[in-house]
Amino acid sequence: MFVPELIQRKRDNGHLSHEEIAYLLAGYTDGSIPDYQMSALLMAFFFRDMDDAELTSWAGEMLRSGEVLDFSDIPAPKADKHSTGGVGDKISLILAPLVASTGVAVPMISGRGLGHTGGTLDKLESIPGFSTQQTLPRFRELVATLGCGLIGQTGSICPADKKLYALRDVTSTVECIPLIASSIMSKKLAEGINALVLDVKVGDGAFMKTPERARLLATTMIAIGKAAGVRVTALLTQMDEPLGAAIGNSLEVIESVEVLRGGGPADIRELTLLLSAEMLLSVGRTGSIEEARELLVKNLDSGAAYEKWCQLVTAHGGDVAAIHDLSRMPQAAHVTQITAARSGTVVGLACERIGRAAVVLGAGRAKAEDSVDPAVGFYWRAPIGAELREGDVIAELHWNDEARRDACIPMLRTAISYGEKAVKPPLLIDRLDEAALTPAPIPASRFQQVRRG
Amino acid sequence: MFVPELIQRKRDNGHLSHEEIAYLLAGYTDGSIPDYQMSALLMAFFFRDMDDAELTSWAGEMLRSGEVLDFSDIPAPKADKHSTGGVGDKISLILAPLVASTGVAVPMISGRGLGHTGGTLDKLESIPGFSTQQTLPRFRELVATLGCGLIGQTGSICPADKKLYALRDVTSTVECIPLIASSIMSKKLAEGINALVLDVKVGDGAFMKTPERARLLATTMIAIGKAAGVRVTALLTQMDEPLGAAIGNSLEVIESVEVLRGGGPADIRELTLLLSAEMLLSVGRTGSIEEARELLVKNLDSGAAYEKWCQLVTAHGGDVAAIHDLSRMPQAAHVTQITAARSGTVVGLACERIGRAAVVLGAGRAKAEDSVDPAVGFYWRAPIGAELREGDVIAELHWNDEARRDACIPMLRTAISYGEKAVKPPLLIDRLDEAALTPAPIPASRFQQVRRG
Repeated sequence: MFVPELIQRKRDNGHLSHEEIAYLLAGYTDGSIPDYQMSALLMAFFFRDMDDAELTSWAGEMLRSGEVLDFSDIPAPKADKHSTGGVGDKISLILAPLVASTGVAVPMISGRGLGHTGGTLDKLESIPGFSTQQTLPRFRELVATLGCGLIGQTGSICPADKKLYALRDVTSTVECIPLIASSIMSKKLAEGINALVLDVKVGDGAFMKTPERARLLATTMIAIGKAAGVRVTALLTQMDEPLGAAIGNSLEVIESVEVLRGGGPADIRELTLLLSAEMLLSVGRTGSIEEARELLVKNLDSGAAYEKWCQLVTAHGGDVAAIHDLSRMPQAAHVTQITAARSGTVVGLACERIGRAAVVLGAGRAKAEDSVDPAVGFYWRAPIGAELREGDVIAELHWNDEARRDACIPMLRTAISYGEKAVKPPLLIDRLDEAALTPAPIPASRFQQVRRG
Repeated sequence: MFVPELIQRKRDNGHLSHEEIAYLLAGYTDGSIPDYQMSALLMAFFFRDMDDAELTSWAGEMLRSGEVLDFSDIPAPKADKHSTGGVGDKISLILAPLVASTGVAVPMISGRGLGHTGGTLDKLESIPGFSTQQTLPRFRELVATLGCGLIGQTGSICPADKKLYALRDVTSTVECIPLIASSIMSKKLAEGINALVLDVKVGDGAFMKTPERARLLATTMIAIGKAAGVRVTALLTQMDEPLGAAIGNSLEVIESVEVLRGGGPADIRELTLLLSAEMLLSVGRTGSIEEARELLVKNLDSGAAYEKWCQLVTAHGGDVAAIHDLSRMPQAAHVTQITAARSGTVVGLACERIGRAAVVLGAGRAKAEDSVDPAVGFYWRAPIGAELREGDVIAELHWNDEARRDACIPMLRTAISYGEKAVKPPLLIDRLDEAALTPAPIPASRFQQVRRG
């Protein structure tokens, strides 16, 4: 096959066959197809999109580029959740032990924060001693014995995605729905799960700014899952304001632990229950959403989820004493209350800017190679609908570096839109599953080959 | 400047400023911007086009990436011709000495054959001893003393184009009018000329298959020329059948010499006169096309053009004895007459396939690094309108390699469409100059800076 001819065909709105896509991804992964040809092809995909067959081939070959875990010898049903990323989104930390406490295994491979959103790995690693760098045999042992493992990407899973992700980042080919969907789904399908629940964020603080784009991404991922024989459900949820109050790694662990103890912010608890219930229903752990929710509420309030969490922390090398006594979690040297410069009702938030303010403070990464400060962050005290008077606290800043603090404060102050009457956005915008797909013949065989192999 | 941001802006149909384009081309030329970012940008240009300001910036910065010749101390007016490439197009070999014989200097920097079209350098180098690898001081001396120099690209002229051309070839970003126009014009503007005549080929044997695409390319090049203060005229000419009969390097030199001696095929003589007359008019050598044509016909028929040609051959190290006695030009070992398999009128030709057949025979290049056989080629004997009987000769094949011969013959045989009544395409389709431009403000200052510096 002649790579320029394949690029040209896609460029001119033609179709790439399964064999051609397999050739392109295998060649790119082994280095025989250079970056400059792949980036031209990626830009052609940006403009021309993928048809259903190309999409499933692309996602399937991304998956096939590396190791696919097989947990079929573990009797528990396996499910996972993936969020497209938001501000203050610490759901995974609560959901993983909560779902595992019901007997559904959660083999969760997570990512780091990038851009204005935080990452589960960074949050977990703010717990003293906690290691997300477990070997795959140890990961399997954790899933088998505790019903949950929490690790980061390994080199052996989806190496094509690793290379492509880095290339897309520097060639402005990130914002392409089939490429985003393939990147997410190939990594999740490699986990050897039976069901996946997607939290597709919508709003200013999300990568998808409109429900239409979010819906398109969701159905694209559902289609990939269907072809792979994995049941995928997507909840479209609002990201117009931070989830909970805590933003920053140690602060988010603390807030998560509060929810695991049966307390914490209502929106965090609610979204965790919504997503967890879908997971239980998807794998047949319960017969209905209501039944699932009942079980989950019980395990949150009884301490069963908290107990599972403590076991997980210990099993990953973490110091459980820092969980029992949250004052032992990393603490910033300084705490400053940021106050409102005027009175008024909060009618809107520049949510992405709030996320970026946390990055500026040191809680996140501007570049992949940046390190994060686990202790810094803030509690956001001015949700949509808050009626502020001049001098009221809008954020409690936990900081270590004066220059970073000074850069962060104006970002937070200017993130608020004041007005008369606020409309609180609903947490749940939509729910999509396979029924949302237009009936298109998707060649399932490709994935089944992989999953059997 | 942040390159992904620039790629993204163009991708999203935004505008790149002059400074940004200068940054991109300078960085690409010096290697600080990698191929994979440039190829993504080129693909974005393919889909988004360039606006007038981007076009003149791009072409101007391509020019500025290397040396720009300055012949202002040579009193003669300077003009050149560029053809977008065709089959059997040997016009440059006749036009250069013919125009030089009228006192207009022709500093001609040519290219090699690629794809199905031949290249002037390959044709010249089929003359024993002829060297197109002259230094720039020697080139200047040739232009000053003989009124013409015939050389190939040097590393010092438009290095950005050299890199971009190679990258476009392997990333399927060749067929993009502003990139094609910039590539051609930057190299031609580096010649230090006052006027340029473009032969924009249209038809099956041309890169532009329709008059609309050819017109767009022509006006794009005229716009670049206007911004640079160089008068550009474009003739759109037909390439539905080979020009003349000879295709192949040595054979084309022989046919050119016949025209320079006042004979040769009528279409070659006519197209040479059309293009040459535009050059004389453009630089004010004559006051009208008619007067120019009269002078050119006189110099062809008097032997003045032929004499200039012989001086040029000698000055470039060529053996003029091979011109005076054309049997001394490289000869293929075998000559085979290819005959028509059926009777009928030639109503159409697969002209690109005829060009490709010459490449297959060894007269051209499939890849830039291939070498050519100067002796091989064919005389095409079945022009549109020919009334063939079975067994009539359609081509006279000059060949050295049996396998190549066998691959070539069916390509030639299947290139003919037979029918009842042929419509001979007109040689000249259209003539365009600055009057064809929609009045748009083009910032001339950029080029003038270069040309003064």
